[in-house]
Amino acid sequence: MAEDKKLVEAITSMDVDFAQWYTDVVKKAELIDYTSVKGCMVIKPAGYAIWELIQSQLDARFKETGVENVYLPMFIPESLLQKEKDHVEGFAPEVAWVTHGGLEPLQERMCVRPTSETLFCDFYANEVHSYRDLPKVYNQWCSVVRWEKTTRPFLRSREFLWQEGHTAHATAEDAQARTIQMLNVYADFLENVLAIPVIKGQKTDKEKFAGAVATYTIEALMHDGKALQSGTSHNFGDGFAKAFGIQYTSKENKLEYVHQTSWGMTTRLIGAIIMVHGDNSGLVLPPRVAPVQVAIIPIQQKKEGVLDKAYELKERLKGFRVKVDDTDKSPGWKFSEQEMRGIPVRIEIGPRDIEANKAILVRRDTGAKIEINLDNLENEIATLLDTIQKEMLERAREHRDAHTYTATNYEEFLQTLNEKPGFVKAMWCGDRACEDKVKEDAAATSRCMPFEQENLSDVCVCCGKPAKKMVYWGKAY
Amino acid sequence: MAEDKKLVEAITSMDVDFAQWYTDVVKKAELIDYTSVKGCMVIKPAGYAIWELIQSQLDARFKETGVENVYLPMFIPESLLQKEKDHVEGFAPEVAWVTHGGLEPLQERMCVRPTSETLFCDFYANEVHSYRDLPKVYNQWCSVVRWEKTTRPFLRSREFLWQEGHTAHATAEDAQARTIQMLNVYADFLENVLAIPVIKGQKTDKEKFAGAVATYTIEALMHDGKALQSGTSHNFGDGFAKAFGIQYTSKENKLEYVHQTSWGMTTRLIGAIIMVHGDNSGLVLPPRVAPVQVAIIPIQQKKEGVLDKAYELKERLKGFRVKVDDTDKSPGWKFSEQEMRGIPVRIEIGPRDIEANKAILVRRDTGAKIEINLDNLENEIATLLDTIQKEMLERAREHRDAHTYTATNYEEFLQTLNEKPGFVKAMWCGDRACEDKVKEDAAATSRCMPFEQENLSDVCVCCGKPAKKMVYWGKAY
Repeated sequence: MAEDKKLVEAITSMDVDFAQWYTDVVKKAELIDYTSVKGCMVIKPAGYAIWELIQSQLDARFKETGVENVYLPMFIPESLLQKEKDHVEGFAPEVAWVTHGGLEPLQERMCVRPTSETLFCDFYANEVHSYRDLPKVYNQWCSVVRWEKTTRPFLRSREFLWQEGHTAHATAEDAQARTIQMLNVYADFLENVLAIPVIKGQKTDKEKFAGAVATYTIEALMHDGKALQSGTSHNFGDGFAKAFGIQYTSKENKLEYVHQTSWGMTTRLIGAIIMVHGDNSGLVLPPRVAPVQVAIIPIQQKKEGVLDKAYELKERLKGFRVKVDDTDKSPGWKFSEQEMRGIPVRIEIGPRDIEANKAILVRRDTGAKIEINLDNLENEIATLLDTIQKEMLERAREHRDAHTYTATNYEEFLQTLNEKPGFVKAMWCGDRACEDKVKEDAAATSRCMPFEQENLSDVCVCCGKPAKKMVYWGKAY
Repeated sequence: MAEDKKLVEAITSMDVDFAQWYTDVVKKAELIDYTSVKGCMVIKPAGYAIWELIQSQLDARFKETGVENVYLPMFIPESLLQKEKDHVEGFAPEVAWVTHGGLEPLQERMCVRPTSETLFCDFYANEVHSYRDLPKVYNQWCSVVRWEKTTRPFLRSREFLWQEGHTAHATAEDAQARTIQMLNVYADFLENVLAIPVIKGQKTDKEKFAGAVATYTIEALMHDGKALQSGTSHNFGDGFAKAFGIQYTSKENKLEYVHQTSWGMTTRLIGAIIMVHGDNSGLVLPPRVAPVQVAIIPIQQKKEGVLDKAYELKERLKGFRVKVDDTDKSPGWKFSEQEMRGIPVRIEIGPRDIEANKAILVRRDTGAKIEINLDNLENEIATLLDTIQKEMLERAREHRDAHTYTATNYEEFLQTLNEKPGFVKAMWCGDRACEDKVKEDAAATSRCMPFEQENLSDVCVCCGKPAKKMVYWGKAY
């Protein structure tokens, strides 16, 4: 039995050291490995399979809204990066520069894309001529590079995987509508696929994307009470269009600039899944992104008929992602492993169960055990996976709501930020100076100005001047 | 009517200038666009959708054989690249070097991966300890960079998309079996999905991959009689394992080196599709990789009921990829566009057809028109797409066979290579000197030593010494 517990004992408790717990889960659930390339990671099969499920389901949602996929180069010539002033200032300090191709120095150095606004603009400047060419609603799945000083698996690494949508529209209204449409696709995806509730809102000017007119965000709360920006959607207005000369002839035969948007989500979502749902036994995966949804673990598997029965059940569960653990490890070891990897349901099946035409289902999220009649297997599994998916969202929502506070004076505000991990809702005057002060006093940032506004008070929580917006504040990853 | 022909007239005839015809198709079918990044291209929606269909069907075949997907960093530190001598010599002259991260010079420069053997070896050295950890059968979908001097869309570009499988096995036999297994997956995929027949064989030492013990290849013949290496599978033996120290403890408790393989296919396959199946009206796509399989083109679409009927037919063809062209262009223009884009079948439906409960199906590959009763629509389309898929393969096979020659003396050999575009089968002594001479005399290379050997003569076609192998020779992309 000592061996059975080995996997679990190696994990730090999340209440003792959340950061170490996170690193332990990421390693023990075999999601990533570190590499000789500083700040970059290997995404291992168990981690990449989650990304594939995210990708396929998100991509299908994109395509339903008319998105088309493309692929643009990974390199950006320096002169192209410099065309939009705010954008280059935001990204130049953190890009990787290619200076040599083969044995020769390049005439102009190029960076590895940190994001592809400039390349899409260059492309659209060639492609868009008439109102008939609009809208362009393109997306690409690729990796990007940002030369971060400190890195953490999935949350912040020098290279990460993402999708980046880039669109061009005839009017400001069309661009704004697409910006919000994609934010809604993201929010719906997080809630209904990843079981993560989000706050939708707009970033303040201080926190918006380099070059954007407006940045919208979905903000999620992790188990430790820190916020995670989980997806952003930007409206660029016609700023990039003017910098890159993207013009079209309108129906009225006038030359007009296009209006643009971009929106992206990344492998950071895997970090969000871990930190919202995980527990001291490891990963807990929502069924819709679980590469294995059901682990069948035979008990006394050497007894005649047990393994056969296990495979028979797998065969019956064809519509689900099912694995039989037929290794020669002990059942206890297998339970620990299934728990560490976050597999939503395990089926325990042994000689006595078979004789009674029964099996035990064990929920990963709650640990609850359910005895079922094997005749109802398919329905029981379908219903249970649905229930788990829904209840995981509800628990995450309850946790978030229980860790969302309000403050109407600065003392209370700072005290809450420092002592109660979570979101703090408070009024804001709209001045950057107050955001800077909050950052200095509490190492917290404005997460967003939520679409669902509340009037908590008439004055800014920081300076006392008249309030313009209710803001979610918090410490963030 | 002048306008109707515009799309077609812009294409160079393939018999006049095949290279220009290729470039015209690639542009007019909207597969790619050139960019400000020299030697790199944008893959546009019509091109990327083909890649997505290649990717999803190939990936499913991989997974059936137990392949798991992962993601490794895009950067390789110089010291890592240098660990295997032949490998670094093969790739160092054509890699892009990153020398700065953000504002600081790097302590060690890194190249953007041209291929990831070295990274996988570094990873496996950490991961593999016991025979229980084997085999590792990992693959990644990513982009790679090779600093080519001259580039052509899909065929040779500085950045391209591909998959690269990298495996580690306990024994030499297991590695060899996996090498051949994947070559067979590739050959089957080309024949049954891309409708491209291939010659399977082994590369000569001169043509094999840098660092491999043996390289296997599938070679296809393009319409102009040039060969295209379409996929390769390499057996590395334990050479990389020794360079990187990848060892495991066997069941007998002995320390052993692993045996490795790698195998890859790229966006070059899209070039193969174009050059095998295309014609003077543009692209011709095999149904299984056609993003749109059926274009419904309404005739006199302003007449009542015509567009409604077109949408009704689309609705009935839900199991297929169908598009209704309801733009305000003329039918002739739409026909040209559907032909240029290679859509396998078009349905012409007008008021008289509707009245008669009929429609005209037109095959893209042969131009044949088929009048069908609308009651049989679903079956007719299913059967026709199957027929097209099969006949495209057969026509490509006939073309290849008709352009495959044999030669038993050097004069005949050179004359055939120079005057009859195609494969030339001839015997070879096994010496590199003869390959070098053929390259100098006819600008041709050994494509492969086919698995299906024939004894055409007892002596080498070049030097007259005893022959060891029958070889396919040709001029290649």
